[in-house]
Amino acid sequence: MAGMDTTVIGLVNPGAMGATVGGLLVGAGHRVVWAGRDRSEATRRRADAAGLDDVSTIDVLADRAAVVLSLCPPSAAMDVADAVAAAGFDGTYVDANAVRPATARAIAERFATFVDGSVVGGPPESGDETPTRLYLSGAGADHVAALFDDDALEVVALDGPVGAASALKMGFAGWTKGTAALAVALRAMARAEGVEGEVLAEWDRSLPGMRVTERSGRAGALAAKAWRFAGELDEIAATMATHDLPDGFHHAAAEVYRSLAPLRDHPDPDVDDLLDHLLD
Amino acid sequence: MAGMDTTVIGLVNPGAMGATVGGLLVGAGHRVVWAGRDRSEATRRRADAAGLDDVSTIDVLADRAAVVLSLCPPSAAMDVADAVAAAGFDGTYVDANAVRPATARAIAERFATFVDGSVVGGPPESGDETPTRLYLSGAGADHVAALFDDDALEVVALDGPVGAASALKMGFAGWTKGTAALAVALRAMARAEGVEGEVLAEWDRSLPGMRVTERSGRAGALAAKAWRFAGELDEIAATMATHDLPDGFHHAAAEVYRSLAPLRDHPDPDVDDLLDHLLD
Repeated sequence: MAGMDTTVIGLVNPGAMGATVGGLLVGAGHRVVWAGRDRSEATRRRADAAGLDDVSTIDVLADRAAVVLSLCPPSAAMDVADAVAAAGFDGTYVDANAVRPATARAIAERFATFVDGSVVGGPPESGDETPTRLYLSGAGADHVAALFDDDALEVVALDGPVGAASALKMGFAGWTKGTAALAVALRAMARAEGVEGEVLAEWDRSLPGMRVTERSGRAGALAAKAWRFAGELDEIAATMATHDLPDGFHHAAAEVYRSLAPLRDHPDPDVDDLLDHLLD
Repeated sequence: MAGMDTTVIGLVNPGAMGATVGGLLVGAGHRVVWAGRDRSEATRRRADAAGLDDVSTIDVLADRAAVVLSLCPPSAAMDVADAVAAAGFDGTYVDANAVRPATARAIAERFATFVDGSVVGGPPESGDETPTRLYLSGAGADHVAALFDDDALEVVALDGPVGAASALKMGFAGWTKGTAALAVALRAMARAEGVEGEVLAEWDRSLPGMRVTERSGRAGALAAKAWRFAGELDEIAATMATHDLPDGFHHAAAEVYRSLAPLRDHPDPDVDDLLDHLLD
């Protein structure tokens, strides 16, 4: 890390993804600050473990940081940007959330320098076979990409304007989260019709490469994340509608995830719990 | 075929699937009749090639046949059943169309003996790695299954009531035709957002087993069949709605296929033609 510039980076917020990415930036020699006032004990533990500095408020964070990185649920992205802009932040703002491109462009208007971003994959871990990707787009993308130096996160500066990184995320999650919802909804239908075993057998036989059965049975992950997937699917539906493309796939998927959201606190959900919630 | 009983089977209608299945029944030693009056020259050529006997009208067909097999677009299934019932048919009626289970049950009420059916796969051909399946359900399923003897078509009598074979088809096509529509719609969105290459690269990288790119590029097959997929997707949406499950996936897929329907007569469509129609 000798010779590397140290940048003060404001991180909003240290959720599972944010804390992990923040830790990578600390590891790259940067000072990463966050606004801990009124945050939960769990968030504080994650921030401390990642080596982040608590500067208490967004006002102080906006004053100290040269770069602010927003990693939050898509429904909160605009409020976070508004708060940072209201605090007079004049550095480079990076929104790396799963928002529709139009939202990225609207957030861009609040800042002198804005980089659009999106994350494909889970919280980055060393040794993952496919590293998590952070896509960046817009004029400052290369500058932001240069802040990172850990192989656990592959940072890709796209040759595209603000909105490109967000659109890429919509096109990726629109498939993965859309099809996961479709698979579990179809399985619920098959159960309701009394042909669940027959449908699973036909899936296994005709679509072995699709791993549909495995995906529809990935109950724990879906149950834990459904509450936040719903908002992301709303963003994807809105992106489709922008281009007069059918938005029903992703509205339906959001509906599935909203039905599953109460499972967030279930200690050990299985596929029966998912199907029960969908058929309730 | 020595010792095999010969049955007179009425086939409505000799489309691509119907003519092929009818030919297998002729090959198994049965007499297969169809109603050729006012049908197109293309249909007549297919029927002749398959060895079917033209008895001119549904009235004669209903009088001669012991079994009637309906293979037609889902939107026509009820009309075909009504016509055969009105002709006084008193044998075993088999609806093998991609209809919602409720439609199969409604058709069943028109006949003394009814077998629900569905076809998974294309028109059966000898030597296909995965043979096309004809699923059957209801009390007479074994009797109908016994009419077939060709390995090109795997006939499966399900241990379930009328509606089971149709529900299995909804659960299968709801995935295959739903995801094919989703893939091409997402690719259209990516193109409209200027990130088509980036989305395809991410799909190829993260989802190699899903063959998403290949599927979204399977332009010729989609273009040729979209006009009839739309009606099938309507049936699947209705099946989902019956159980208060989200029906938007399949309404959206039907919308995609309706947009693509004009490509039916395109001599050599490629993926650009599909995307142009979706983004028109």
